[in-house]
Amino acid sequence: MIHQDTIVALATPSGAGAIAIIRLSGKDAITIASEVFVSIKGKELSNQKSHTVHLGNIVDGDRLDNFRIIDEVLATVFKNPNSYTGENVVEFSCHGSAYIQQEIIQLLLRKGARMATAGEFTLQAFLNGKMDLSQAEAVADLISSDSKASHQLAIQQMRGGFSSEIKILRQELLNFASLIELELDFAEEDVEFANREEFQKLISKISKLLKNLIDSFATGNVLKNGIPVAIVGRPNSGKSTLLNALLNEERAIVSTIAGTTRDTIEDDISIGGVRFRFIDTAGLRETTDEIEKIGVARALEKLENSSIYMYLFDCSEMTLEEVKNELQGFSTNSKQIIVANKIDKASKQQLSILEKSGLEILFISAKEKESLDSLTGNLLEKAEISVLDSNQLIVTNSRHYDILGKSLEEIVKVQEGIDSNLSGDLLAIDLRQALYYLGEITGEVSNDELLGNIFANFCIGK
Amino acid sequence: MIHQDTIVALATPSGAGAIAIIRLSGKDAITIASEVFVSIKGKELSNQKSHTVHLGNIVDGDRLDNFRIIDEVLATVFKNPNSYTGENVVEFSCHGSAYIQQEIIQLLLRKGARMATAGEFTLQAFLNGKMDLSQAEAVADLISSDSKASHQLAIQQMRGGFSSEIKILRQELLNFASLIELELDFAEEDVEFANREEFQKLISKISKLLKNLIDSFATGNVLKNGIPVAIVGRPNSGKSTLLNALLNEERAIVSTIAGTTRDTIEDDISIGGVRFRFIDTAGLRETTDEIEKIGVARALEKLENSSIYMYLFDCSEMTLEEVKNELQGFSTNSKQIIVANKIDKASKQQLSILEKSGLEILFISAKEKESLDSLTGNLLEKAEISVLDSNQLIVTNSRHYDILGKSLEEIVKVQEGIDSNLSGDLLAIDLRQALYYLGEITGEVSNDELLGNIFANFCIGK
Repeated sequence: MIHQDTIVALATPSGAGAIAIIRLSGKDAITIASEVFVSIKGKELSNQKSHTVHLGNIVDGDRLDNFRIIDEVLATVFKNPNSYTGENVVEFSCHGSAYIQQEIIQLLLRKGARMATAGEFTLQAFLNGKMDLSQAEAVADLISSDSKASHQLAIQQMRGGFSSEIKILRQELLNFASLIELELDFAEEDVEFANREEFQKLISKISKLLKNLIDSFATGNVLKNGIPVAIVGRPNSGKSTLLNALLNEERAIVSTIAGTTRDTIEDDISIGGVRFRFIDTAGLRETTDEIEKIGVARALEKLENSSIYMYLFDCSEMTLEEVKNELQGFSTNSKQIIVANKIDKASKQQLSILEKSGLEILFISAKEKESLDSLTGNLLEKAEISVLDSNQLIVTNSRHYDILGKSLEEIVKVQEGIDSNLSGDLLAIDLRQALYYLGEITGEVSNDELLGNIFANFCIGK
Repeated sequence: MIHQDTIVALATPSGAGAIAIIRLSGKDAITIASEVFVSIKGKELSNQKSHTVHLGNIVDGDRLDNFRIIDEVLATVFKNPNSYTGENVVEFSCHGSAYIQQEIIQLLLRKGARMATAGEFTLQAFLNGKMDLSQAEAVADLISSDSKASHQLAIQQMRGGFSSEIKILRQELLNFASLIELELDFAEEDVEFANREEFQKLISKISKLLKNLIDSFATGNVLKNGIPVAIVGRPNSGKSTLLNALLNEERAIVSTIAGTTRDTIEDDISIGGVRFRFIDTAGLRETTDEIEKIGVARALEKLENSSIYMYLFDCSEMTLEEVKNELQGFSTNSKQIIVANKIDKASKQQLSILEKSGLEILFISAKEKESLDSLTGNLLEKAEISVLDSNQLIVTNSRHYDILGKSLEEIVKVQEGIDSNLSGDLLAIDLRQALYYLGEITGEVSNDELLGNIFANFCIGK
């Protein structure tokens, strides 16, 4: 898949802006760029050092007469292998008019470049060994990151993350595999080149890492998409007011999605860098109305699928008895936060009864924005996430999750093989399969289809 | 208005893309950048040469512990005065996630930069003498340019255009003004330092240039906004088919604006680099229907306001007599193009009659895309525009048009003063006023209000 072409694309978002970047990468990038770029100081691009910037004009046509200046630009030269792609790269920083961008790209195409496909710059970076496959995938995650947590995960993965550890362990495993295959050559002499004890240690180390990584996927996924928090409670208990108050506090609404059902609204809020997906459910109450019953049933379903549910009630209206009754109605494994709202309207007596109830209740006033800190603190605690601990490795990519599972399966087979004194030739088969899967994570093993699938999700220009 | 601040803004369009550029400009740009940028190779930004690019991480927090990597970026250093603004500039090329862009900008703000106002980078470039005012204005025109003609005009103006000529003539005028003011000091001695003949030559040269520039505004304006071409003709004469055919030919639709009235549609098409604004009018026909009469009246109004009108008829259906009758109904100063459409359906006899009619008729088939070349050629001819002759100076900016008018008025007064042997002190008053206006074009004379008005129309980041 390594190309001989020189590819070009707009690297900045489309639309008008002060600046746009057009990126040219490939063997002939500097030659092609020289044909259209006339330096103000008369410099030749090809004689310039890597990582230098030059002011000049993009000119269409013969340089002496019959030429047309398309734009005054800055040209930045990166020389093979010291560039993003590992090839020669020229980046033109031009004025951000869509017309100019098109004219420059068209001109470069006429001079011999071709349009880059989605993710092709990063694909070349991978093929040229500038990054491994999981790092390349992290680039796309990084671009689409929209909260501190998803950003942190992507950065971690891009900087090596778990793939560097896998790479080392895979190398060690590869050494053992070679030794075992070597034993096969000397089968008649019954020698053991591979120290079985050391080998077992390595296998259990790998299996432990794989298990941890697989377990981390649930967390990773939740961090990427937001931790689902169902807000339940009677109508008028202040659910919407609370949501709005949290939004104002954090000034970080990510999106407001009108739910599929008329009565479910989801809001994404980033609190302390972690994204929570709040699911505002229908007000819960005893009802004989058939349609309302459906709404309540749906609310309970949302509650069961959430990681955390927040039970909100109006403490100026509901009695402790009623609260207890309602809480008994919730059968779910999700973590519970009981919130007494409207403390500004409740009497001292009402509050005192609740305080002495033995229930772990948070007292707030959503309207007055009172004690919201304790609520968000409690949420973060319940979320139990230490994503910002940069030593923890978290898998967020479902491809990785999938292959980690397959790798573990093979590693377990190897482990069982060792335990049951399986012959070297049979062990070697499982080992090869394990090495194959582990290699697919880092891209040490890859094929066109795999790469095609991965990079098709990139934007053009990356 | 020259600031002591260091300003920061996103310079690329907002939204997700492969790359985003964050621009930092000001006295402390490099110092502030150094505080957040950690070079991969351990380089100090402040020790780097101008126009060099460095790979590193944007890091928030203490460098040794408790830090957070926001992104891996390229930092480009430009040193005062060799930068766009003429100040120290650092551009960070980061991953194009909106989250990352915000995090980096927020970090730079915490480190002492402030958000740039609209057009502030270009304003500083002007204040630091990197460009004159009309060049600065051209930057905004360039960014919004969307056709070859508007682009060419903006590039020309940005590269100096007429303002450099005005600057030279103004300097000469300034010299004469000084001499005349000097004469006043020696009024009792009746000397003449300023050679009246030379002076008169200069005045007439300036007045000629101003007149030309003022005249060019009509053309410039039309080029910027598109040459209005009304398409008239009976219903079903093929107007829409023709428009679509032209669009396909040129593959350069600029916009489709549904008109204010149900029956008027405007389409912008760039032909041979010139933008035409086609106004598709209601079908014309004799009618007793009151509402339809209004539509026809509107069509005729559109026709009168157009530069060119294209009368389209179905030559397989209409007789020469009918065509002549309809043409007589159009009283307008706009240029006329008579187009016989549907030649593929007309009989030889029908075509022959039309050919011998003495009328200048273009024969086409919009449906079969036949002879469209002759039509577009005719359009360009009628448009009579040699905008692509880069020696022609064209004014497109209404502020310039306005001040050129005022300058000319004063120059005419000076001229009259010379002709009537006006005394030096009176001449000097008109001269000063003329110098003032001429200076406002190039920005040699400016004030905060003027600059505020001009740069308020820029985008932030430019």
